[in-house]
Amino acid sequence: MSGSAASTGDTGQPAARSDRRYVLTVTCPDATGIVAAVTGFIAAHGGWVVEAAQHGDLTTGRFFQRIVVLADSLPFGTEEFAVRFTDVAEEFDLDWHLHDTEQKRRVVILVSKEDHCLADLLHRWSGGDLRCDIPLVISNHPDLRRLVERYGIDFRHVGFDADRRAAAFAEVASLFDAAGGDVMVLARFMQILPADLCARYPSRIINIHHSFLPSFAGARPYHQAFQRGVKLIGATCHYVTADLDAGPIIEQDTTRIDHADNVEELLRIGRDIERSVLARGLRWHLEDRVLVNGNRTVVFG
Amino acid sequence: MSGSAASTGDTGQPAARSDRRYVLTVTCPDATGIVAAVTGFIAAHGGWVVEAAQHGDLTTGRFFQRIVVLADSLPFGTEEFAVRFTDVAEEFDLDWHLHDTEQKRRVVILVSKEDHCLADLLHRWSGGDLRCDIPLVISNHPDLRRLVERYGIDFRHVGFDADRRAAAFAEVASLFDAAGGDVMVLARFMQILPADLCARYPSRIINIHHSFLPSFAGARPYHQAFQRGVKLIGATCHYVTADLDAGPIIEQDTTRIDHADNVEELLRIGRDIERSVLARGLRWHLEDRVLVNGNRTVVFG
Amino acid sequence: MSGSAASTGDTGQPAARSDRRYVLTVTCPDATGIVAAVTGFIAAHGGWVVEAAQHGDLTTGRFFQRIVVLADSLPFGTEEFAVRFTDVAEEFDLDWHLHDTEQKRRVVILVSKEDHCLADLLHRWSGGDLRCDIPLVISNHPDLRRLVERYGIDFRHVGFDADRRAAAFAEVASLFDAAGGDVMVLARFMQILPADLCARYPSRIINIHHSFLPSFAGARPYHQAFQRGVKLIGATCHYVTADLDAGPIIEQDTTRIDHADNVEELLRIGRDIERSVLARGLRWHLEDRVLVNGNRTVVFG
Amino acid sequence: MSGSAASTGDTGQPAARSDRRYVLTVTCPDATGIVAAVTGFIAAHGGWVVEAAQHGDLTTGRFFQRIVVLADSLPFGTEEFAVRFTDVAEEFDLDWHLHDTEQKRRVVILVSKEDHCLADLLHRWSGGDLRCDIPLVISNHPDLRRLVERYGIDFRHVGFDADRRAAAFAEVASLFDAAGGDVMVLARFMQILPADLCARYPSRIINIHHSFLPSFAGARPYHQAFQRGVKLIGATCHYVTADLDAGPIIEQDTTRIDHADNVEELLRIGRDIERSVLARGLRWHLEDRVLVNGNRTVVFG
Repeated sequence: MSGSAASTGDTGQPAARSDRRYVLTVTCPDATGIVAAVTGFIAAHGGWVVEAAQHGDLTTGRFFQRIVVLADSLPFGTEEFAVRFTDVAEEFDLDWHLHDTEQKRRVVILVSKEDHCLADLLHRWSGGDLRCDIPLVISNHPDLRRLVERYGIDFRHVGFDADRRAAAFAEVASLFDAAGGDVMVLARFMQILPADLCARYPSRIINIHHSFLPSFAGARPYHQAFQRGVKLIGATCHYVTADLDAGPIIEQDTTRIDHADNVEELLRIGRDIERSVLARGLRWHLEDRVLVNGNRTVVFG
Repeated sequence: MSGSAASTGDTGQPAARSDRRYVLTVTCPDATGIVAAVTGFIAAHGGWVVEAAQHGDLTTGRFFQRIVVLADSLPFGTEEFAVRFTDVAEEFDLDWHLHDTEQKRRVVILVSKEDHCLADLLHRWSGGDLRCDIPLVISNHPDLRRLVERYGIDFRHVGFDADRRAAAFAEVASLFDAAGGDVMVLARFMQILPADLCARYPSRIINIHHSFLPSFAGARPYHQAFQRGVKLIGATCHYVTADLDAGPIIEQDTTRIDHADNVEELLRIGRDIERSVLARGLRWHLEDRVLVNGNRTVVFG
Repeated sequence: MSGSAASTGDTGQPAARSDRRYVLTVTCPDATGIVAAVTGFIAAHGGWVVEAAQHGDLTTGRFFQRIVVLADSLPFGTEEFAVRFTDVAEEFDLDWHLHDTEQKRRVVILVSKEDHCLADLLHRWSGGDLRCDIPLVISNHPDLRRLVERYGIDFRHVGFDADRRAAAFAEVASLFDAAGGDVMVLARFMQILPADLCARYPSRIINIHHSFLPSFAGARPYHQAFQRGVKLIGATCHYVTADLDAGPIIEQDTTRIDHADNVEELLRIGRDIERSVLARGLRWHLEDRVLVNGNRTVVFG
Repeated sequence: MSGSAASTGDTGQPAARSDRRYVLTVTCPDATGIVAAVTGFIAAHGGWVVEAAQHGDLTTGRFFQRIVVLADSLPFGTEEFAVRFTDVAEEFDLDWHLHDTEQKRRVVILVSKEDHCLADLLHRWSGGDLRCDIPLVISNHPDLRRLVERYGIDFRHVGFDADRRAAAFAEVASLFDAAGGDVMVLARFMQILPADLCARYPSRIINIHHSFLPSFAGARPYHQAFQRGVKLIGATCHYVTADLDAGPIIEQDTTRIDHADNVEELLRIGRDIERSVLARGLRWHLEDRVLVNGNRTVVFG
C-alpha cells in the first residue's frame, strides 16, 4: 500500500497510466467483511480503484458489487488475478467476473425493417461511444444491408418463413456463435425468440420493447397505448427470457404525448425513446454495470 | 365587431375589465364551419376571446372545442347566451356547456388515512391556486379531521364496515348531494366505488391511482412495481367508471427510481408524483380543459 | 357552409382527400373578432379546418394564430386565396403567411466537424420524418463529405481561414441563395455569423446551442457547466440574431448528470439532447408552428 | 470477519437489528488503499456495511467516500470509533465525519412571506419523511406564525428594517445558536445574508433559489425567465456562500412551460419545483450524502 504516493506522482493522479481497466463484478450472499476482503485483496497488490459501487438486497439477502481497477496498477493480468483471488472468492461464496476493457465484447445485432435503433447504435459505435466490436448484423429482411455494410459490418439475411422458423433460429444461433458473439441485441427484431434460444444465452440477449413495460406487452404497443389514452409513452430495454416481454428490465424511459397525437405520431415520437433507451441499456451492459437479481436488475450508475 | 377598438383602449388590451370569464366547451360530429359559426356568434356580440383550442378526432369523427370569453365583453349573461346560442347549437348538433368562472365549482374530497394528497389540495386551495369551493371532506377514518377543520371545512366520518358498505356509499352520495357537490375527488380513498355510484356522476368523480396505468391496477401498486423491477414509477389521475382503474385518463407522470429503492422508498417518492398529478388533473377539470372522448380525454393546455 | 356534410361523407371525415394542406399563420394587434373573421372566411369557402391554435400576448397586445386547412376542401389555390383574403387582412392589420405543404421548404445545413446533429437530421429526413428538401450542406471542414453525399446531397467545403472570414460568409450566403434556401440550420457550426448575415435572413437561421441558455452562452459550454457544478445540462434551439446566443428560443431541454460525469461524459450525454432539441425545433419551424414575438416565440403544439 | 454468518442468522440479513446507523463520510487526497483501509477497519470490528459509495475527482485529486454501518454490528459507540479510527485517518490524511442517526440534526428554517416551501417541509417532517428536529422558524414577517406553531415549533419574528439589518442578522445567528442549530434552511427567505454569517456556517446554510442557476441569479428570476422566453423553468438548492447565488449546487430540476404561461403562471408552476428541489436537497444533506468539492458537490445517491 505504501507505494501509492510514488506510483501516482505529485498530483495524486494516475494520469500517465493507460486507459485499460479491469472491471470486477461480484454477487454473493450478503455478509460482513465482503467489501473489506475484496478491496483488501486489490489494495494488497497496489491496485488503484477508480470506481466502486455495491448494493445489498434485503429481500433476497444477496450482495452485489462492481469495482473498476486501473490495469497497470496491478502487477499481474486477469489470469493470475483469477488464481490469486480464489481464496477470497471461496470464503464468501462469490459469483464473480473479471472483465478486461481491452477485450472488447462482440455484439451481434438482430433487426427487421425498422432502422432507427440500428442506425443509432451504428452511429454511436462508429464515433467511439459504444466500446465493443460489432462483427455481424442479422435480419429477417434484406432491406438494411446497405446501411450495415457501409460500416464495414457483415450483414446476413436469414429467411423466417413460417415453415422454417426453428431452422431460422438455429441458423441465428449458429451465426452468433461463429461470430464469437458475447451479446445479442434485438434492435426492433420482430420475431419472438424460442425458449431454448433464450435459455442458451442467459442475460446475454437484450431487447428493446416499444412500451413502458409491463403495460402493452406483445404486439402493436403504440396502438394499445393510443386506445387506452395514456398521457405518456415509453420504451423498455430488458434481458430476454422465455417469458415474452417479462425479462429483467435494464432501463426505461417515458415521454409526454397529448390527445392530438395519433398512432402515427406515437410511432414517430416513440422511435426517439426506443433508440436512446436501448443505447443506454447496451452501454451499461458493456460496462458491466448491470447485475441480474432474480427477475430484477441492479444497475450501478 | 367595430366596437372592439374602443372597448379595449389604446393598448389593445382589456386591462380594465374584470377577471370574470365564460368558458364554452363544445363536442359534436366534426364538420366544416363549426369554428366559424361559434366564433362568429361570439364576435357578433362583441365577445373578446382570450383562449381557444380545438381538436378533431379522426378515429371517432368527433370535434372538441374550448373557448374562453371575457364576460364583460358580452352584452348578456349565461342565461341569455344559452337562449341565443340555440340556433348554432342545433345546426351543428352541439353538445355544449357554458361555465361562468364566478360560479365556483363545489369539490367534495374523499380520503382514507394517507394525507399527502389531501394536504396538498387544501394548501393549494387556501393559497388561491385551485379555483373552487371545498365544502366537505368525507373519510372512512376519523384521523384527518383536525387537518380538514383547520381550513374551516366540514369533515364527515362515514363508517365502512363490511356489513354496511352499501349504506356507507349511499351516505356518501347523500352527503355529496347535500353539499351541492359538482366534483368528487378520491384523494387516496381506499374503498372501491360501486358501479351505481360511478354511473350517477359520470365524468365528475376524479381518482388518483398510485401507478402509471394500465400497469399495476388494483391493490398495492408500489409492491407490484418493486416486484417487476421497473425503473420508473408513476401516478395516474382519471375519471372513475365502473371498471376499476380503467376510466378515461386525465393526467399521468413518472419519476425515476433505482435498485436501491425498496418499497418504502417507492411509497415516499410516489407521494410526490401522486399529489402533483392529482392537483394538475383537478385544476384542468375545474378550468373545463378536460373533455371526455369515449374512454380517452382531450385536455386543452 | 352547407356543402360540408356532402363533402365529408357519412363518417364526417375527409378520409378520401389528399394529405395536402394550407397552413395559415397570422400575427396582428389583438382585437375582437379576428378568429371569427378568419375562420368565417375559410368556412364561407367550404374550408375544412384540421388544426387551429391562437395566442393573445397581454404584454405586447399582439395576437397569434395558426390554422391548418385541407387544401382540397377549398375551391381555389394559394394565389387566389391571397387575393380574396385581402379584405380580412386589411381590416385587422394582419401580418400573415400561407404555406402550401406541397411546397417543401429548402433547408441548407451548416456544420463543422461534429456529426451527431447532421447525421440525425439526415436520418430523420431520409425516413420521411422531416418534411423538407435538403439541397445542400456547407462545412468549414471537408470531413463530413462522405456522410452527406451518401444521401445524394451536395456538399460544399468553404474555407474559413482568419483572413477570409468575410469572403467565406459571402460565399455561404451566395451558396444558400443559389440553392434556393428557405432555412439555414447551424447543426454545430462553430463559426460566429456576422451581423449582416443574421439580418439578411431574419427568423430563417436556426442554431443549436449546447447549453440551457441563457446559462453558458459562448464557447465551451460543457466545460462551463462542469466548472459550475450544475446537476442538469441542456441544449437550446433558437433563431440566430446579431446578439450571440441571444435570439428567440424555439425549444430547450435538459437532462440529469451527476458528480461522476466529467467533461467528456457531459459532451457525450449532451449530444443526445442537442440532436433531439434541434430536430424538434426544425420540425416545428417547417410546420409553421413557430411565430416570433419580439425576442420570444409562440410555439403552437 | 469469520463471525459474520453467525451474527446475521440463516437469512444473511440483519433483520432483528435496530435501525440505528453510523454514517461515515470521508474526503482526502486520492491514493491506493483508502477503501481497503477504511472497510478493513470496519470489517475487523464486525461492522455490517449497508451502503457504500465513493468518488475520485480527477480534476482535483480528491477522494470522497460515504459508508453506512449498522450501529449494533459494531462493539463500540461513536466516541470509541473515533479513537480507534485515528490510525487509519492519519495514514491517509482523512478529513472525516461520523454521524449517529440517533442524533437528529437540528434544522432552523428562515422564511419570509411565501409559505409553499415551509409548508412542504413541515408536512414532510411531521409525517416522518425528514429525519431531523425543527426547533425554530425565524421570519422577517409575522405572517406565518400560525402555520408554524400548529406543528408545535417556535416561531420568531425578527424585524429587518433597513437601519437594523446587521442587528437583525446578529439576532438570527444568536437564535440559531441558542436553538442548537446544525443546519439553516432559507425556505424562500428574501434577505441577502451578509458575508460574515455565510462564513460562520460553511456548508451548513441551504438556500432554494427560484431559477435554474446560473441563469437568472438575483431578484425576480421568473420575470427574467419570462423576458428571455425560455421554454423550461427551474429551481436550485445550494449551499450559501458570500457570493450571491453562486455557492455549491446540491440539487436542481426543471419543468416545461410554454408561451401561454405568463409570469403569474411561472410563479405558480415554479412553486412545485422549488419545494421538491429543496426537500430533496435538505434530505440528502441530512443523510450525509452531500460532500463539498470546491465549489461543486458530490451527492451520493
